Amino acid sequence: MADRQENASGEDSLIARYFRPIATDPGAFNLDDDAAALTPSGDDIVVTTDAIVEGVHFLADDPPDTVARKALRVNLSDLAAKGAVPAGFVLTLALRDIDEAWLRPFAAALGEDARHYGCPLLGGDTVSTPGPLMISIAAFGRVPTGKMVHRHGARPGDRVMVTGTIGDAALGLAVLGGGKVHAAVNDPATRDLLIERYRVPRPRTALAEIVRDHASSAMDVSDGLAGDLTKLCDVSGVSAVIDLESIPLSAVARDLLSRGVIGIETLIAGGDDYEILCTVADNSVDAFAQAAQRAGVVVSSIGMVVAGAEAPKFLDGQGGEIVLKRRSYSHF
Amino acid sequence: MADRQENASGEDSLIARYFRPIATDPGAFNLDDDAAALTPSGDDIVVTTDAIVEGVHFLADDPPDTVARKALRVNLSDLAAKGAVPAGFVLTLALRDIDEAWLRPFAAALGEDARHYGCPLLGGDTVSTPGPLMISIAAFGRVPTGKMVHRHGARPGDRVMVTGTIGDAALGLAVLGGGKVHAAVNDPATRDLLIERYRVPRPRTALAEIVRDHASSAMDVSDGLAGDLTKLCDVSGVSAVIDLESIPLSAVARDLLSRGVIGIETLIAGGDDYEILCTVADNSVDAFAQAAQRAGVVVSSIGMVVAGAEAPKFLDGQGGEIVLKRRSYSHF
Repeated sequence: MADRQENASGEDSLIARYFRPIATDPGAFNLDDDAAALTPSGDDIVVTTDAIVEGVHFLADDPPDTVARKALRVNLSDLAAKGAVPAGFVLTLALRDIDEAWLRPFAAALGEDARHYGCPLLGGDTVSTPGPLMISIAAFGRVPTGKMVHRHGARPGDRVMVTGTIGDAALGLAVLGGGKVHAAVNDPATRDLLIERYRVPRPRTALAEIVRDHASSAMDVSDGLAGDLTKLCDVSGVSAVIDLESIPLSAVARDLLSRGVIGIETLIAGGDDYEILCTVADNSVDAFAQAAQRAGVVVSSIGMVVAGAEAPKFLDGQGGEIVLKRRSYSHF
Repeated sequence: MADRQENASGEDSLIARYFRPIATDPGAFNLDDDAAALTPSGDDIVVTTDAIVEGVHFLADDPPDTVARKALRVNLSDLAAKGAVPAGFVLTLALRDIDEAWLRPFAAALGEDARHYGCPLLGGDTVSTPGPLMISIAAFGRVPTGKMVHRHGARPGDRVMVTGTIGDAALGLAVLGGGKVHAAVNDPATRDLLIERYRVPRPRTALAEIVRDHASSAMDVSDGLAGDLTKLCDVSGVSAVIDLESIPLSAVARDLLSRGVIGIETLIAGGDDYEILCTVADNSVDAFAQAAQRAGVVVSSIGMVVAGAEAPKFLDGQGGEIVLKRRSYSHF
């Protein structure tokens, strides 16, 4: 055995110490193999993949536990919006070196989230990189055959609904940036809350089956509500009219907006919300809202799907159209 | 529509131009959605993920078409070794910028390989990075329930078998490095052949079902034959005795070895072979070899599984044990 331990590479040792203990699903084969297995259930397997890059999706000094949670949760958010129940994930981790002080809390938090959301680690790949840390996850969920909720499917007359509040994560990033938003938010607890919204998304897993039962179309809000709604309308071949005053905002977001510290674009084009945006037929809205409430999730109606090919309109309290300077975060 | 086009992000435009045309599987939903769907077939879904990083797994000046093929094929190689028939893949692409001259041949080659191997692009994520290019793929295959071939399962008395030739990819990397191997290989066609072996693996997809029918254990050789066999033996709880003279080598590898330009470690601890290493019960070896031959793949018996917990032994032509200076490539 001495030979073997001397031969065990850093990667193998890293997997044994940090990832094997959290890979408890039988389909992970104890991470002893080159692949994992998802057993058939008669359901469709929904597959999504999202990567986060240091300096782009998270900051170099974000705590490692929050980086782990964000990496998994941005994928869980996609599954929830598609009406899928989590089934597992595979992890690609690109590291500059093996930093135990970083890896230990990263793996522990990943394991906690995997258990909490019922989404076990099935396998992965650890590679070295001379560049920024990068975590890519492919996550799997199950829906009854053909029942995945799509971006297409929104119909004129449907209500546009969104979960939670919009813009807090973008404010959290702005607080971390140390500029005027940081200066305008004096209360440390409020600052921490906003930063937490940026660092640790809250995927709406509890809403997956409710979205599946009631929504005509859905997606998660990751690049900004305005831009993501534009994409949903585009694929559905419809337009929408949104009442800006109906968009659910936290008290601090509302305060910063009313004081002119930020414009509406900061909130609805900022991204990182990981709330569910969906459309619901008018006669299903009450049932949807009640089911969501029972699941502990607040949903708000923010407007209406309309016929047309133009980008969604955003109206102020007087019904006047607001021209947005930008609609979403773009990587390029 | 003008509004929409102005709002389309660089990422959306990139997807539309390069990746939508190659995502022709119905489960990809035209890349219009946040997720893909794999329909149930009653089979297990085998999942594997492998990433390649510029400067680590490929070189900055490798042609983009070869980078695309390598990214997909290292995953197809895993599926084949697990006995799985390809079903699709998702792609994470981390780019510094949108370089059309790079992306066009990258996407075209990826699409060609996806068609050739019957492994359609189902979805992905494109992100910006300030660091090296990185491509992470999660690939899916199908096997009858419970029939995935594992690293465990090798039994004393089984033959150790390997496909193709070993070490040519490592020689290709050495040729690109411009050192003594480059100097010792004078023939440009031979150089090109070795470089091609490094840049463009040849996954043994044709052997997947044959491995499933005959092998007691299997994995693909990615980090070096010696180290990968050590891993397989470790998980199987066995050891092995390998006859170095039986390891299949190309003519140029044999020549460089006999001239002392390289040691055996360059070939069997170098990695990037993407051949299948498997164990086959003695009474199945003939059937396995004949089926492989019908599939157009040469397989060689290189030794025997034996009881024991020590690392596999490598014997020279006189039956003496060779002590290897290293057994595999390690990232860390």
